[in-house]
Amino acid sequence: MELEFENLNITVVGLGLIGGSMAKAIRKHINVKNLWAIEVNESIIKQSKQERIIDEGFINPTYPLNHSDMVILCAYPNTNINFIKDNMHKMKKNCIITDTSGIKDKISRQINEFIREDIYFVGGHPMAGKECIGYEFSDSSIFEGASYILTCNHNPGRQIEILKKLFYRIGFKEVSIMSPEKHDEMIAFTSQLPHLIACALVNSDKFEQGLDCMGGSFKDATRVAQINAELWSQLIFENKDKLLRALAEFIDDLNKVYHIIDNDNKDTVQSYFEKSTAKRKGISI
Amino acid sequence: MELEFENLNITVVGLGLIGGSMAKAIRKHINVKNLWAIEVNESIIKQSKQERIIDEGFINPTYPLNHSDMVILCAYPNTNINFIKDNMHKMKKNCIITDTSGIKDKISRQINEFIREDIYFVGGHPMAGKECIGYEFSDSSIFEGASYILTCNHNPGRQIEILKKLFYRIGFKEVSIMSPEKHDEMIAFTSQLPHLIACALVNSDKFEQGLDCMGGSFKDATRVAQINAELWSQLIFENKDKLLRALAEFIDDLNKVYHIIDNDNKDTVQSYFEKSTAKRKGISI
Repeated sequence: MELEFENLNITVVGLGLIGGSMAKAIRKHINVKNLWAIEVNESIIKQSKQERIIDEGFINPTYPLNHSDMVILCAYPNTNINFIKDNMHKMKKNCIITDTSGIKDKISRQINEFIREDIYFVGGHPMAGKECIGYEFSDSSIFEGASYILTCNHNPGRQIEILKKLFYRIGFKEVSIMSPEKHDEMIAFTSQLPHLIACALVNSDKFEQGLDCMGGSFKDATRVAQINAELWSQLIFENKDKLLRALAEFIDDLNKVYHIIDNDNKDTVQSYFEKSTAKRKGISI
Repeated sequence: MELEFENLNITVVGLGLIGGSMAKAIRKHINVKNLWAIEVNESIIKQSKQERIIDEGFINPTYPLNHSDMVILCAYPNTNINFIKDNMHKMKKNCIITDTSGIKDKISRQINEFIREDIYFVGGHPMAGKECIGYEFSDSSIFEGASYILTCNHNPGRQIEILKKLFYRIGFKEVSIMSPEKHDEMIAFTSQLPHLIACALVNSDKFEQGLDCMGGSFKDATRVAQINAELWSQLIFENKDKLLRALAEFIDDLNKVYHIIDNDNKDTVQSYFEKSTAKRKGISI
């Protein structure tokens, strides 16, 4: 397999928000041999073909899997696992398979248990999204300036280099590599916890009464309370232990804040704010 | 006093981020008789005069207070209270005084204890801001589309109508009126709590390790962790009881979320996300 993308057939599986955005970003930024999609919804295949995003779309995965050098899975986590299990025998030798789902450890373990030795699975997670679902909202620009995480346990090989190059080319600012376990531990804190916090704020009994008093801080903190409920229920339970640990630690942190306020430790509160200000300045808005 | 703004002398006290923005917004949108500022920093007076934001600036408050029909206090809460106490005798009969600080109940009680009967104090709170401090960052556009809250316990009179008209004219989308106590109860939940959450997330031990895994949800949830530490320490303790109640309730809510996940209540988690999605859709992004 050459590093030149123009020699590669790439197939995106599932043209939802992420899959559609992935196809659009590849079409926009890279000249590939063929960009195909496997998608159960025929009208979406038709639309994306008409828009010249994909070269061809398939309901039956046999042909594209026989001929693809890279397969990017953009369905829900469990669907992705079952797709590989059911269709692995159709895949081209040396094919690179990657997924885009928000948790990585359990998926990687399951896939590594059964995957053929002559194809390569590398987990992936684009740190980008939108509070809407489906191809109609897909947009290549959601990836611009965002981070991508690739996960592997073994020595990162050529496959990872090819994926890194692809994701940089389609607009990601930073592509990091870490173990699936480390990814899930971090994501529990940096993504799943803020989602739960947002939902808890919005589901609070005080929400309705407070409508007149909502400014930027509440709106920003709760943007992601508009959530893909089905997908996120899966993500939560697939990462249950690490998420509950992050949530318990955060509840402890809030209890500490409660006590420094309750004890009138004014200097400690001010230092706490000075510390958060200095730390938050280190990351972009 | 006429409702025509061109007959009014208006004085802004304190040309920081909010005071500077207030002066700029009034200058931009309203033709007033005189727009004055009282400010301890002479170079800021000079700058804002050169920029034609204010007509005149004063370190000594005597002249502008003698002649102002409206005084807008834009300093820290305790400074505002002391300013009225110290300078009340200089104020023009029937003058309207309003403040802009983020808590209202304690301030209003204290001011109402000593205020002259022939001048009017109405509390105010612009639900707008920026994560920076000082006149140099002031900007009339921060008010555009935001909400303003005016607080009073008694029957809202002409003074409130004048202020309402002013704040609508300078760009606020919604001006609500409520009791100071209700304001503080709501703000504990809609503003102070999200600020504490943001600071706790950023001050977490996990923050540094998670830097590669931060996407939009973490960035949005922690934007306000960059905070004016001195001002917010005051705001927190001035509203201590209501804030601690809101924080304790939120910790309870998070504990409930912990248990529904821990108990593998998948349907309950999915409904929880569906509920937050429906509720969050009701407020603007």
